[in-house]
Amino acid sequence: MKIRIAMTGFGTVGQGVATLIREHGDEYERLYGVRLSLTAVADRGGAATDANGLDLDALLRAKADSGTVATYLGGKRDLAGDAFLDAADAQVLIEASSTNFQDAEPGWSYARGALARGMDLVLASKGALVLHFRELFDAASAGDRRILFGATVGAPLPVLELADRVLTGTTLTAVEGIFNATTNSILTSMEDGLSYDEGVRRAQASGIAETDPTLDVDGWDAAAKAVILANALFGANLHLDDVPREGIRGVTKADLQAAREAGESIRLIARIARDGEGVRATVGPVRRPLTDTLGRLRNEEMGVVMHAEPLGLMDSTVQATGGIPTALTVLRDIFNLARERGWRDR
Amino acid sequence: MKIRIAMTGFGTVGQGVATLIREHGDEYERLYGVRLSLTAVADRGGAATDANGLDLDALLRAKADSGTVATYLGGKRDLAGDAFLDAADAQVLIEASSTNFQDAEPGWSYARGALARGMDLVLASKGALVLHFRELFDAASAGDRRILFGATVGAPLPVLELADRVLTGTTLTAVEGIFNATTNSILTSMEDGLSYDEGVRRAQASGIAETDPTLDVDGWDAAAKAVILANALFGANLHLDDVPREGIRGVTKADLQAAREAGESIRLIARIARDGEGVRATVGPVRRPLTDTLGRLRNEEMGVVMHAEPLGLMDSTVQATGGIPTALTVLRDIFNLARERGWRDR
Repeated sequence: MKIRIAMTGFGTVGQGVATLIREHGDEYERLYGVRLSLTAVADRGGAATDANGLDLDALLRAKADSGTVATYLGGKRDLAGDAFLDAADAQVLIEASSTNFQDAEPGWSYARGALARGMDLVLASKGALVLHFRELFDAASAGDRRILFGATVGAPLPVLELADRVLTGTTLTAVEGIFNATTNSILTSMEDGLSYDEGVRRAQASGIAETDPTLDVDGWDAAAKAVILANALFGANLHLDDVPREGIRGVTKADLQAAREAGESIRLIARIARDGEGVRATVGPVRRPLTDTLGRLRNEEMGVVMHAEPLGLMDSTVQATGGIPTALTVLRDIFNLARERGWRDR
Repeated sequence: MKIRIAMTGFGTVGQGVATLIREHGDEYERLYGVRLSLTAVADRGGAATDANGLDLDALLRAKADSGTVATYLGGKRDLAGDAFLDAADAQVLIEASSTNFQDAEPGWSYARGALARGMDLVLASKGALVLHFRELFDAASAGDRRILFGATVGAPLPVLELADRVLTGTTLTAVEGIFNATTNSILTSMEDGLSYDEGVRRAQASGIAETDPTLDVDGWDAAAKAVILANALFGANLHLDDVPREGIRGVTKADLQAAREAGESIRLIARIARDGEGVRATVGPVRRPLTDTLGRLRNEEMGVVMHAEPLGLMDSTVQATGGIPTALTVLRDIFNLARERGWRDR
C-alpha cells in the first residue's frame, strides 16, 4: 500500500530519509507491505510537490546543486506554511526542520497544520515537543491522529519503544541516559588528551557538532530530551526552565584524569525520576564507573537506563549516530505507524 | 475487555503470572484496557478450570499446599491434554510447562492443540520452538494465529521487540548475547574466588540453577535460545545439533584470573550470524573486555548485541531474572498481542 508522505526540513535527516527510500524502497515494500512515497518536501528555500511521488534522484540533486528543493522541476520558491500543507496531499508529515527552542517555528505551525488536515505526525525536530507538548498531543487526540517522535530522544536509542512495548506491565521510576553524542565525543577527546577546544573542533570535523555548539555543550539539547521523556513517559508537564542544567564547559582534563585513575569517567547524563507526586529532570556531568552502562560509553555512543518496578533495570546503548541512523529512526516510526493504522498490503 | 487465558505448567513462571494478575489486574485493566482472566490452569498433578475466571488466591494456595492445582475447588486429577484445552474456553494459551529438549512434550501437544482450537499462543517453554519451529509457525499462519515467545530468549531481554519494532528498515547481520543467567552467575562467583562447585551451589541457593544444572552449564539452554533466534530473526531452520556448543565446565579459576589481569572477563556467549547464504549459531566461553557490553555483565545480568546494517550496533542488558521478570515478559507478550488483536476497551 502506498503511503503519501510530506516532509518539512530537508537537512541531514531529511536527505537521509530520501536516500534510504530511494535505495531501499522496493525492499521496504516487500518486507513491510508499504510503499513510501514522498509527495511534498519543503525547506527554507521553497518546496517541491508531486502527488504521484517526487523523483528522489532529481530531488536530492536539486538540493545538492542549489541548496534548496525549490529548484526541483516545478518547484516553487514561495510555497510554505499552510499553502504547502494544502498542496502536499499526504497522510503523514515528517517534521524535520531545524529545532528552535525560542518559538518552535516553523515546526510548531507545520505540526499543528498537519494535524488539522488529518495527517499523522513523525517528528524529528524537538521544538514543538519541548515548548508545546500538551497542546500538541491534545490536538492529536482530538482528531484521532498519531504522533511518533523516536528521532527526537537520542536516535536511534529505543527509549520510547522499550517504554511502550517492553516495559508494559511495569511502572517506570527513573530514566537516565546519555542522549547527546556531541558532548560525549568531546569528553572522550579530552580523556584522550585533547583540549576542550580541540575536542569541539574534532566533533565539528566529524559532522556531529554544529558551528555553534552551545545547544550541545551547555546541555540544552540533553535538557530538551529530558523534557520530552518526562512528559511522554512520566505524564509530567515540564518545560526547559524546570530542568536544572549544567553543561560540560566546566569539566577539565584534570577532572577527567582524576576520574580515570579511579576507574571512572565523567559523562553528561540526563536523569528523569519520580519525586514524590511529581517528576524531576536534571542534566549535568556525573562520574560513573567505566564498567557502568553509561560510564563506559565513548565517542558518539549513547545510552539509556530504565528503572522499572517490579522488573528491575533494563538498558540500551547504540553505536550509531548521524543522518542515516536518525533517518532510520524516522522510518521505523513510519513502519510502526503503518502497522497501527493497518496500512499494509498483507 | 476480558481476555480468557489458559495456562499449562504452573511453576515459578506460571505462579508469577497468577501473582501479578492478582496484585495488578485492576491496574492493567485501567492502563491497557484489558482484564486478564485465567480460566484454566494445568500442571503435572491435574487441572483447575472456571469459565468465569479462577480465584487466584485459592489457586495459588492450592498449589502451595498440595503441589498441584488439582486440589483447587472443583479441580480434577485426570484433566490434561486435549480434554483440558477443550474445557479451557480460552483465547490465549500460556504454555509454561517444563522445557523438554527430547520430544518437547507436553508443550508441543498443548501448543498444537491450542492453535487447532483457535487460540493464540504465548510461550514460556522452549521445547516446541527448538524442536518444531517451522511446523509451529506454519500451523499458526494457516489459522491466522499469533505466537509470541519473548519469555524464551533470555527474559526479560527485549531481543524480539528490538528486532520487530526498532530495527525495522535494517538488516540484521549478527546477534550475540549472554542469554543464560546461571552460567553468568557461576563464572562471576569463580571470579570472586569460589570454586566451580561452590559457584553452582550458590546459583542453586539463589534459585536460578536447577538441581541438575547440566542444561545450563553445558550450554544447552544458550544453544536452544540461539536456535530460536536464528530461526525467528534470520529465517533459518536450525536445530540443536547444528549449534557447535561448549559449556563452562572447562573454564578454570586460573583462566578467569588471567583474563581479569588483562582487563577482560570470560562469558558464555551465544552468537548467531549470517554466513554466506546460511546462518551460523555457536555457543561457547569467550574473553571480552570488562568495558564491553557483554564482558562487563556480572551475576545474573544478561545482555544482547544486535548488529544491523546500515544502522550500526544496538545493545540491551537487564538486571532482572527469575520468576517475576519472566512472568512480566509473558504479560508484555499478552498486552502486545491484545493491541495487535484490537482487544481493548479504548
